[in-house]
Amino acid sequence: MIPQWIIEKKRNGLNLTVAEIDFFIRGYMNGTVPDYQMAALAMAIAIKGMTLDETRILTKSMLASGIVLDISSIHKPKIDKHSTGGIGDKISLILAPLVASCGVAVPMIAARGLGITGGTLDKLEAIPGYRVNLSEKKIIRVIARCGCSIVGASERIAPADKKLYALRDVTGTVPSIPLIVASILSKKLAAGLDGIVYDVKWGAGAFMKTKRDAKNLANMLVKVSVLSNLRASAFITDMSQPLGRAVGNAHEVVEAVETLRGKGPEDVVELTLSLGARMLLTAGIEKSIDTARDKLMRKISSGEAYERFKLMVRLQGGDSDCLERPDNLLHASITFPVKAGQSGYVEEVNAELIGMASLALGAGRRRLEDKIDHSAGMVVLKKTGFPVKRGEPLAWLYANSEERMEHAKPLVKQAFKIGPGRVAPPKLIIGKI
Amino acid sequence: MIPQWIIEKKRNGLNLTVAEIDFFIRGYMNGTVPDYQMAALAMAIAIKGMTLDETRILTKSMLASGIVLDISSIHKPKIDKHSTGGIGDKISLILAPLVASCGVAVPMIAARGLGITGGTLDKLEAIPGYRVNLSEKKIIRVIARCGCSIVGASERIAPADKKLYALRDVTGTVPSIPLIVASILSKKLAAGLDGIVYDVKWGAGAFMKTKRDAKNLANMLVKVSVLSNLRASAFITDMSQPLGRAVGNAHEVVEAVETLRGKGPEDVVELTLSLGARMLLTAGIEKSIDTARDKLMRKISSGEAYERFKLMVRLQGGDSDCLERPDNLLHASITFPVKAGQSGYVEEVNAELIGMASLALGAGRRRLEDKIDHSAGMVVLKKTGFPVKRGEPLAWLYANSEERMEHAKPLVKQAFKIGPGRVAPPKLIIGKI
Repeated sequence: MIPQWIIEKKRNGLNLTVAEIDFFIRGYMNGTVPDYQMAALAMAIAIKGMTLDETRILTKSMLASGIVLDISSIHKPKIDKHSTGGIGDKISLILAPLVASCGVAVPMIAARGLGITGGTLDKLEAIPGYRVNLSEKKIIRVIARCGCSIVGASERIAPADKKLYALRDVTGTVPSIPLIVASILSKKLAAGLDGIVYDVKWGAGAFMKTKRDAKNLANMLVKVSVLSNLRASAFITDMSQPLGRAVGNAHEVVEAVETLRGKGPEDVVELTLSLGARMLLTAGIEKSIDTARDKLMRKISSGEAYERFKLMVRLQGGDSDCLERPDNLLHASITFPVKAGQSGYVEEVNAELIGMASLALGAGRRRLEDKIDHSAGMVVLKKTGFPVKRGEPLAWLYANSEERMEHAKPLVKQAFKIGPGRVAPPKLIIGKI
Repeated sequence: MIPQWIIEKKRNGLNLTVAEIDFFIRGYMNGTVPDYQMAALAMAIAIKGMTLDETRILTKSMLASGIVLDISSIHKPKIDKHSTGGIGDKISLILAPLVASCGVAVPMIAARGLGITGGTLDKLEAIPGYRVNLSEKKIIRVIARCGCSIVGASERIAPADKKLYALRDVTGTVPSIPLIVASILSKKLAAGLDGIVYDVKWGAGAFMKTKRDAKNLANMLVKVSVLSNLRASAFITDMSQPLGRAVGNAHEVVEAVETLRGKGPEDVVELTLSLGARMLLTAGIEKSIDTARDKLMRKISSGEAYERFKLMVRLQGGDSDCLERPDNLLHASITFPVKAGQSGYVEEVNAELIGMASLALGAGRRRLEDKIDHSAGMVVLKKTGFPVKRGEPLAWLYANSEERMEHAKPLVKQAFKIGPGRVAPPKLIIGKI
């Protein structure tokens, strides 16, 4: 086999075989297929697409470039949730311990943030001492003790995905559904899961800007997961405005803790319960959405879910006492309230602009090597549909430099649109697969 | 500007600007745009295409990566012919001195062969001493003395094309009309031409397998040439069977000499006169095809054209006496006649299989670094439409190793199809632009 023949086949829109995809990915990892051949194939895939089965094969080849977590010693259904990313999306922090408290094992391999999209690992690192890089043995021990573990992908998990993703980032081949699906799923399969629930975001703050793209991605994710022997389903959810009130790493940890203690914002609670119920059904632990939601709510009101979270934090080296005293986390030196310029109703809180403001405040990274300021961020007080009075604060901003604050202010102002008439809040969950 | 934005634009099928194309090609040459980004863009171009104007800009950027031959000291119209390549295509060797003898300057920057396609430079190197690498000054001196020079592209001629071509070869991006046009034309413009006549081949032995593809390429070549201020026209000609009788480097030199002496095969003579007449019209030296053809025929019958060829060979270091004694060139140690298995009419002499046989005999190279056996090759005695009797030789093969001969025989046998009914020979020139 010769790499360029495989590239030519895809360029002509033909389907690749198991042998061809395997040869290419293996070659890419052992150096016989150079970056430029991988880049040409990635572009041909980005334009010509891949069938479900090709995507399944690519996923499997990428998975095979690394190890699979041996989680067989844990005799519980292993279920995860994966979100395609958005602004203020701290659901994983709440969901993992909550679902674990119901008897599910949640081995969650999460990511860092890049651009306007936050990352679960960065959020957890706002907790002093929390370690996201654990050995495989240690991950299993944490899950055995508390039912869940949220960690980063080690070098041994789907290294082909790591290498390919870095290449796609600089060759204009990121927004390709088969490549996205293979990237997500190869890492998820490496966690040794039985099932998964996807949360595919759409809207201004999401990767998928249209409902149609989000539905296509959700569809492909579920279908390829099922072909890969995972029980899978997906929700398509709103990311036109930020999720919850808090945006920024420590702020989001605090909001996650509030939610685990039964005092979370409505949309965060609703999405947590919806995704969590689906996870319990996928696990076979509950038979109906209603009983599943009841169980989740009981685990919150009893404090068990929160205790699980604190236990996971401690097992991963974090200072769980901090969680009891939010001021220890929220120590930004400068605060500023962005106020309403007029009275009326909030028509829009543009999630993309809020994400850009959050980046400007120091809560995110533009490049992989950038450092994050965990205490920077904001609290959005008024969301779409809320009535506001002129001069009322719309959001509080937090930063550690005047310069950063000045950069963020106009972005936040621009994110809010206020009009005279009543506005319905956007539908949180627009589809299920 | 960021390379991946330009790649993304083309991936989405949008047109690139002068600034974007220039930035990319400059970056590719100075190393700020790595191979993998160029490969991704080349694939996006191969699939999404380029407009005429984008192709003109790309050509210009590639031309600007090197020098333009300063041929202003020669006060004659500078006209060239370019063929897209085929089997037995030795027209350049005949045409350059013939047209030069009519008062045209022909600065012909030619190429080596690769795969089944022969190369003009390899053919000329069958003549002992002939040098294809001359300094720019020396090229001008040769043209000043004999009106023509056939040389290779130096490192200073369109180096971006050299680098990009090597990359396209291994990334499945060779068959892209805009990339082909920019590659050909950037080198042709570097020769300081006033006009050009293209010979676009189609059929089994050509790069373009269908008439439609050949017409598209011819059309683009002419249009982009005209946009680049060249007088340009194109012929679309048959490459379903080999051109002439001789295939292989020394054999083709001998056939070129025979043609220059008025004893060439009918198709070689016809194509030479057609292309040559068009070159004289393009040069403004003749006003009608008929008078142009008459002049060309006179230059052959008078011996002037042949004298020009010998002079060019001598000026470029070659032993022109050899041309008088073909046995000095045709010294392959083994010969073999492939004979007709039945009587009838030749229905097909598949040019691709003849090209593969020629490669097997040692007359071509599979990789750029392969060595060529200049004396290897074949003479095709029976072409499409010829009557044959069982046992009559169809072709004589020449090689310097039994092994090579054994590899070639079945390919040649397979190339000939003989049937019972009369067959019309294929039309040589199927279109003109």
